[in-house]
Amino acid sequence: MTAPQLSVAFFLQMFFILVVCRSVAALVRRFGQPQVVGEMIAGVLMGPSLIGLLLPAFQQQIFPNESLKMLFVGGQLGVGLYMFLVGVEFKAEVFRARVHSAVAVSVAGMLVPFALGAGLALWMVTIPGMFAERTTTSAAVLFMGAAMSITAFPVLARIIHDHGLTGTALGTLALSAGCIGDAAAWGVLAVVIASVGGGVVVAVKAIAGGVAFSVFMLTLGRRLLIRLGSATELAGRLTPALLTLVMTLFTLAAWITDAIGLHAVFGAFLLGVAMPRGVLTRELKRQLEPFAVVFLLPMFFTFSGLNTRLDMVDDLPLLLVAIAVLVAACLGKGVACWAAARLNGESNRIALAVGALMNARGLMELIVLAIGLQHEIIGPALFSVMVLMTIVTTLLASPLFEWVYGRHARAAGELGVVAMSADEPATSPERGRRGAAPNERGARA
Amino acid sequence: MTAPQLSVAFFLQMFFILVVCRSVAALVRRFGQPQVVGEMIAGVLMGPSLIGLLLPAFQQQIFPNESLKMLFVGGQLGVGLYMFLVGVEFKAEVFRARVHSAVAVSVAGMLVPFALGAGLALWMVTIPGMFAERTTTSAAVLFMGAAMSITAFPVLARIIHDHGLTGTALGTLALSAGCIGDAAAWGVLAVVIASVGGGVVVAVKAIAGGVAFSVFMLTLGRRLLIRLGSATELAGRLTPALLTLVMTLFTLAAWITDAIGLHAVFGAFLLGVAMPRGVLTRELKRQLEPFAVVFLLPMFFTFSGLNTRLDMVDDLPLLLVAIAVLVAACLGKGVACWAAARLNGESNRIALAVGALMNARGLMELIVLAIGLQHEIIGPALFSVMVLMTIVTTLLASPLFEWVYGRHARAAGELGVVAMSADEPATSPERGRRGAAPNERGARA
Repeated sequence: MTAPQLSVAFFLQMFFILVVCRSVAALVRRFGQPQVVGEMIAGVLMGPSLIGLLLPAFQQQIFPNESLKMLFVGGQLGVGLYMFLVGVEFKAEVFRARVHSAVAVSVAGMLVPFALGAGLALWMVTIPGMFAERTTTSAAVLFMGAAMSITAFPVLARIIHDHGLTGTALGTLALSAGCIGDAAAWGVLAVVIASVGGGVVVAVKAIAGGVAFSVFMLTLGRRLLIRLGSATELAGRLTPALLTLVMTLFTLAAWITDAIGLHAVFGAFLLGVAMPRGVLTRELKRQLEPFAVVFLLPMFFTFSGLNTRLDMVDDLPLLLVAIAVLVAACLGKGVACWAAARLNGESNRIALAVGALMNARGLMELIVLAIGLQHEIIGPALFSVMVLMTIVTTLLASPLFEWVYGRHARAAGELGVVAMSADEPATSPERGRRGAAPNERGARA
Repeated sequence: MTAPQLSVAFFLQMFFILVVCRSVAALVRRFGQPQVVGEMIAGVLMGPSLIGLLLPAFQQQIFPNESLKMLFVGGQLGVGLYMFLVGVEFKAEVFRARVHSAVAVSVAGMLVPFALGAGLALWMVTIPGMFAERTTTSAAVLFMGAAMSITAFPVLARIIHDHGLTGTALGTLALSAGCIGDAAAWGVLAVVIASVGGGVVVAVKAIAGGVAFSVFMLTLGRRLLIRLGSATELAGRLTPALLTLVMTLFTLAAWITDAIGLHAVFGAFLLGVAMPRGVLTRELKRQLEPFAVVFLLPMFFTFSGLNTRLDMVDDLPLLLVAIAVLVAACLGKGVACWAAARLNGESNRIALAVGALMNARGLMELIVLAIGLQHEIIGPALFSVMVLMTIVTTLLASPLFEWVYGRHARAAGELGVVAMSADEPATSPERGRRGAAPNERGARA
């Protein structure tokens, strides 16, 4: 394919992706499901699990082989920007507010699924095709442990915000627990990626490099960025020149963590965390989020879906694996978080709600899985099983939360505004622009 | 290269591109030159004309062959979005306001350079390597005619806005003349592209398809889009769902005009023109422009620069061609527009100013040249010569305008605010956000 042919194919492909994502998202929203669920499902439908199965020639025409790399790179840029914005919105204060229960819940919500994931991995390494040839048992154990303990932090944040629970006991608890747990899981993931790289040197480079980069970013880096914040405050807005500077740093951070053998999202997220708060972070969200979320993220969901082969899950052993993974995921996360919250003296309803929320895996898990596939840790069959688990747990979060907490709380008048629809018109343009955008991205992961 | 390797290369490449573009733009701004001049030059420097000449291995590392297609597609997306936003800001009223002089100036600014370009083409077809083998003489004549008569409409708009000339006799005259002229030039270009496609069927498909698409967009399409405008007004903002819908239409329009044998920018521009004005267009600019201008457009400039071989212009015949093209460009556009304005009773100073402004070719010309190269109408040598002409004419616009008009008008107190620097802090954030963004994109073309 020549470059111009590829460009024609690209516009058609994006048209198709946007139409399918939008349609499925609109459909699932009728059932009170967030956007992310729709896009996950849309991605899978466009892949070999449905369209590729029914209309292989058509699918090949829309997604010619040569276009897949472009889809991958666009998707990486999308999740990179997304994680950067998650970092930009990361609030360290949330940690400190309710540290006691939060640590207990997050440790439980981390250790139990980790242990269950690790146990599953020990079983699954005996099944051919689950992990890549070169993946060692310890890498398999660590990866499954980390993958099982991921929480869809932004989905959680969105549900909490939409129900007016920000600042409440439940909201603070769930947010801080999700945050601590995810940070730990990503740390383990970094170790796994580093360790499968091949050889001690590669692993040391990745781990030492990652630690050095994190320390630099959160100390000296944060200091250096203060000047960028002041320049933005002075200008009263984020000028194109300043945005260019931020994008330069973004590509550099993404490249560094990619090049040392980790993944672009680490650098992007840490850079986001290190950004000085104020006009800068507000404007970054406003200027980068729309395009990243509306145009680039669907590329990621599609690439993920194109790699998901639900048709592989039709033989008995794989079906058993899928069921085991799903049960372990819900037990390890939902049930363990509930138990930890109960043991820390939270009411049963709050504990149940925390469990329901923490159980969602969302886009975060898809990113982890894509990393696993891309670094050839897991095979396509296990990838598909894990995607299925991700969709089901994310799908369950909203109705479960509503069932164990929402309806009671609403009856008791304890719930704030319920604004589940992304399309809902805001009362005022200003409130709309400021208030609604976070949720809608939040809805993705 | 595997997809993940390409992704690592992509982040490094973008880092490099952003650093070079930003540095050169900052440098030229000291000489009162707009951003677009800096990015044009930056693109050429990154190509075989400088970095590729001095550090071939380094250049190959930053721009591996496999990454070039990605750069092309990203750049196409960038110019597509850019032309869409130019369409969104297109004001039909401007046409009508000062139609008399405007038509005269634009006809002169169209016919004279067209005739000179056509004449040059008749000479240049005798020089080997200027045009592609298959390019017929008539196609060469039409292409050179259209290419010579392009005006950098947005550069013109930016200079006028920056000098507070919007709404003045000069401002209205130059803007409307630029607008009419460009529309005509793009029309001719569409005919050229269609005619070189190979065979009557292809040409008919492109021409008939292009006409049908334009008519549809500006009649029924515009009507259908009114509902989108109302939905946005009702919501008071452009929700992600509505933005998704716009992006869907954008990819569709770009794909259609690409697929019928024209170019994505036609569809994108016409869709922009057809968009209902109001919250929708304001929010589209705000949500799409920052990323498109800061991140995607530099990809286009770079791809253009990578194809520019100024080292080819070192033999005498080519140097003669370059000088002839440059002289014809300035005579045909600048001088002819001045003469037409004078004949229509404008003062000498205003006429000179109009000539100085209309002479800039900007990003618009680079888009036309890229189309010519991509459709294999012109060869790399002529492409390089024309890029050189584009840079020089764009470079000349600001100082020429200042010399023939600005300094006198400023002395006479007739000029409004002079805000040439894109970095200049705005007085208030609101004004900043609303007021400054247009210029800065405007500055590109």
